[in-house]
Amino acid sequence: MIVLAINAGSSSLKFTGYRMPEEEVLISGVFQRIGIDNSFYTIKINGEKFEEDVDLPDHKKAVEILLDELIKHKVVNSLDEIEAVGHRVVHGGEKYSDSVVVTEDVKKIIDELSDIAPLHNPANLMGIEVFEKMLPHAKNVAVFDTAFHQTMATDAYLYAVPYEWYTNYGVRKYGFHGTSHKYLSQRLSSILGRDDCKVITCHLGNGGSISAIKDGKCVDTSMGFTPNAGIVMGSRSGDIDVSIIPYVMKKTGENLDEIMNDLNKKSGFLGISGVSSDSRDVEIGINAGNPRCILAQSMYINTIVQYIASYYALLGGCDAICFAGGIGENSINTRKEILEALEVFGIKCDYDANNCRGKEVMISTKDSKIPCYVIPTDEEVMIARDTYNLTVN
Amino acid sequence: MIVLAINAGSSSLKFTGYRMPEEEVLISGVFQRIGIDNSFYTIKINGEKFEEDVDLPDHKKAVEILLDELIKHKVVNSLDEIEAVGHRVVHGGEKYSDSVVVTEDVKKIIDELSDIAPLHNPANLMGIEVFEKMLPHAKNVAVFDTAFHQTMATDAYLYAVPYEWYTNYGVRKYGFHGTSHKYLSQRLSSILGRDDCKVITCHLGNGGSISAIKDGKCVDTSMGFTPNAGIVMGSRSGDIDVSIIPYVMKKTGENLDEIMNDLNKKSGFLGISGVSSDSRDVEIGINAGNPRCILAQSMYINTIVQYIASYYALLGGCDAICFAGGIGENSINTRKEILEALEVFGIKCDYDANNCRGKEVMISTKDSKIPCYVIPTDEEVMIARDTYNLTVN
Repeated sequence: MIVLAINAGSSSLKFTGYRMPEEEVLISGVFQRIGIDNSFYTIKINGEKFEEDVDLPDHKKAVEILLDELIKHKVVNSLDEIEAVGHRVVHGGEKYSDSVVVTEDVKKIIDELSDIAPLHNPANLMGIEVFEKMLPHAKNVAVFDTAFHQTMATDAYLYAVPYEWYTNYGVRKYGFHGTSHKYLSQRLSSILGRDDCKVITCHLGNGGSISAIKDGKCVDTSMGFTPNAGIVMGSRSGDIDVSIIPYVMKKTGENLDEIMNDLNKKSGFLGISGVSSDSRDVEIGINAGNPRCILAQSMYINTIVQYIASYYALLGGCDAICFAGGIGENSINTRKEILEALEVFGIKCDYDANNCRGKEVMISTKDSKIPCYVIPTDEEVMIARDTYNLTVN
Repeated sequence: MIVLAINAGSSSLKFTGYRMPEEEVLISGVFQRIGIDNSFYTIKINGEKFEEDVDLPDHKKAVEILLDELIKHKVVNSLDEIEAVGHRVVHGGEKYSDSVVVTEDVKKIIDELSDIAPLHNPANLMGIEVFEKMLPHAKNVAVFDTAFHQTMATDAYLYAVPYEWYTNYGVRKYGFHGTSHKYLSQRLSSILGRDDCKVITCHLGNGGSISAIKDGKCVDTSMGFTPNAGIVMGSRSGDIDVSIIPYVMKKTGENLDEIMNDLNKKSGFLGISGVSSDSRDVEIGINAGNPRCILAQSMYINTIVQYIASYYALLGGCDAICFAGGIGENSINTRKEILEALEVFGIKCDYDANNCRGKEVMISTKDSKIPCYVIPTDEEVMIARDTYNLTVN
């Protein structure tokens, strides 16, 4: 059975084609700058990569091209062979604690949740609707970024704000990157050889979040009502004192939208380093002795270490820690600094093993009290699995 | 030498009269509802307590009455005997890492800092000015709530926001309750019998903050740019996702000032329990089985435990933990729950010893890996000490 895993953003569309249940990747790629100038797409197939400049006025055009490419590269002989399409949907609110086959009711709820995920849910929904038109015979499945975190207990997901903000407006911690944290937790369970374990999963990319997971269920996570909370990120502030907002508004004359934009787009690594939101650029700055790059990295490590330590306490111990995401999988130095800062927990970095990028490996020594791993995450295969499982019969 | 320790709020004035350097408390009390109706004051002297209803149009009137009472109760025979007055001043910004004799320049800076402490510094300054008028011969000393935290390193006190917010407008973590944390840290050093120690001090009152202290110097603290950050408090939210603010504004139609007021006055214990900002009322609710009181307490414990754990990591271990403040000194149940939640650190609660209120006692068992204490805090004696030391010659 052929399954597509789709991640539609407001101006992009990522895709991976799988043969299921074998989980064989047949094709993958991304359409970029949809609806903007200089749009293009890249395709990876049979170990080769193509890039093509093309006019992409809308997502429909991108999907048309994608389907043409599937035929052209003989991924399928007929589009009828694509039986199901799985879509990443950022916000499932409190309604969805698992993936679901898309119906009119599901679309209605995804649309309603645009209220709390205005940057993501509309684009995700548009992706679903384009595939409904272009592949009318295929079933669509929604895989929510928030679903995995729905197991959090009330005392973990509520904020100490007026209770009515929760009951009337849905203000609570939802958490994001759920599909990745679920994948990582399952891999750790598999590595440890048991399901009853306490693990801390660190998804560290341009966005980043850390989860405390017990027996496969999320206990707490660092992102919150929105993805702006938690650890320092590429351009997001993570946790700050809310009282900074009215103060800076008064000082700068900016309005609230502008301040929120600053906190989402001009903060984190970018805000502190003044150089870049990309941790690789910050690392170059560190190597060149740029004090603000050094500072940004130090603050980054601090927030990660503090979350890991606090989750160690919440879980009442920890059987394994893992690192994933662009930084988690590739920044040797970041992992080293985190592990060294966690020495008080009996964690010991295996510097040789840690000298790796993008592959699954244990990076702590054998006598480390808590084993630590790099695990390349794979949200796409999780989307394909749920899509297959929900549509195979 | 007679020294007064003064804490002037916008509608209150607390005072303690000391004989120094003996640190003998001669008199103490508080004037309440200054400038409001139904104003009154209480005085404690020689183990007895008086309460008096009196019209208090302003702070000057309160100080006049205070000075009369000092004479009347023979605390002094002449006001000339009061050689120095120490004033709690909430915000010393980056300028003051220690207490200072008040000069015109100092007053100017306290006034300038009203910009970031609009609720406190103006009242503190008013207190100083009233005593300057009423006791022109006495020296005044300013003891800053932020001073002790000035030892934090850059990567602890900065937020991951645009760097210019710090350099242009002073946006950073300042921390508060510094005089209390300093007192507690010194007591712990004294109990442990050494200065080179890592301790975590929990000042838990209606406001609350936790500090990580190494070798007597603050490494990190949970309050931030303002006292609204950190743990759940009586009516303050503590740390939340900033993105909640614009969302709730849109939903409720409230303006930013109203939302900030909600987060300061209607959140925390009050917001979640719906019952009260006073933890004693919440405890009554818990005993009556009120689920929202139970929830509020559980969230409270969670945030405290998470801060303690994260500071354990930041410090690279911990030699002692202590609890102070209205809740820390008196809530047997809160301390018990915190210690139990920290069991993974080898902490063991001594339930018999913990069954106490308001006195200095070790509440962990002898084989607890980290000794834990109740230490009644004493900000007043710290004010008196600094005031004496800065003015004795």
